[in-house]
Amino acid sequence: MTSDTPLTAEQILIAAEDVFRRFGPAKATVVDVARSLGVSHSSVYRHFPSKTALREAVNQRWLDQANRQLKVISTDEGLGTASERLHSWLTTLFATKRKKALDDPELFATYQVLTDENSGLVEEHIETLIGQIAEIIHVGVDAKEFKLTHIQNTARAVFDATAPFHDPAYAATWSDPKADDRFDAVWKLVIGGLQAAR
Amino acid sequence: MTSDTPLTAEQILIAAEDVFRRFGPAKATVVDVARSLGVSHSSVYRHFPSKTALREAVNQRWLDQANRQLKVISTDEGLGTASERLHSWLTTLFATKRKKALDDPELFATYQVLTDENSGLVEEHIETLIGQIAEIIHVGVDAKEFKLTHIQNTARAVFDATAPFHDPAYAATWSDPKADDRFDAVWKLVIGGLQAAR
Repeated sequence: MTSDTPLTAEQILIAAEDVFRRFGPAKATVVDVARSLGVSHSSVYRHFPSKTALREAVNQRWLDQANRQLKVISTDEGLGTASERLHSWLTTLFATKRKKALDDPELFATYQVLTDENSGLVEEHIETLIGQIAEIIHVGVDAKEFKLTHIQNTARAVFDATAPFHDPAYAATWSDPKADDRFDAVWKLVIGGLQAAR
Repeated sequence: MTSDTPLTAEQILIAAEDVFRRFGPAKATVVDVARSLGVSHSSVYRHFPSKTALREAVNQRWLDQANRQLKVISTDEGLGTASERLHSWLTTLFATKRKKALDDPELFATYQVLTDENSGLVEEHIETLIGQIAEIIHVGVDAKEFKLTHIQNTARAVFDATAPFHDPAYAATWSDPKADDRFDAVWKLVIGGLQAAR
């Protein structure tokens, strides 16, 4: 690629992710990203006005990727009952996070650094996820599958109660052979709680 | 106090906690602890053969303190039904941790450092706590209050599902005015799950 090839934002984000992983997000510069693409740094600045903007966009892209599959599960009622979909949603969240953490620990650590400095993005991401859980619960309540009143609070409770299976703070425990059994046991409590009469 | 006063281990541990808090556990030495008591370092070494042993003992004392009140709740069947006692146990755990984290953040941070280096102690502590939950659940199952089969796995699930309300990794969220509501919502899920027929 030469410096006069038109660059897409997506190409820059892919390259930036790789550069951040290799150099560490603190040390990596916009010039490093431009160099890895064989372009001048102004080509990068055309899309991202600052290093901060680039870091945020890389982080946002990573969070969006995680959301996409979950969004399908939370909206496609053809995928099963609310209980089945909630199980599939939580299992997918855990599996996706675990795969990222175990397959590419350097990249995962890189994102921990980015995430810590973009707490606003992460809060928004978490609100989106809780909203998806709420959507599934809503369907379950309408179908009389779940018996509860405060959907939004309950959705957050489901998210909180499964924290050890999606919060990166627990990543070190995800390779434990008992992790799946522990997830199952929490799932049983959660689904029992949702189905229980109040 | 002079160097010929017989020192108890407990006196040393109290002084060491204070010294660790003031100097940071990495910098604090056995000599600092001895000096704060007005004794020679050999008086300290008589009880704790090394700085490592002293640090472990300080950490163990802190963990034991947390256990004591919880142990009473987990063993005294006069305190209510299993559901009531489990609620009281979890509420006490959360309140104790939160009080420690918010009242004396320096000491709490000190213990995070100690805890990270004594992961064996912490695992044992967690097993003890899960054992206490299991004891309460056992009573609940006998009384037909809870309907479940795997008591030990379920006890761990209760502990895991309430992690945001006792894991020090979440300490920063405990001053949030919504923390109690979030705890309540998780509690409702958990108790509903325990009472639900399988």
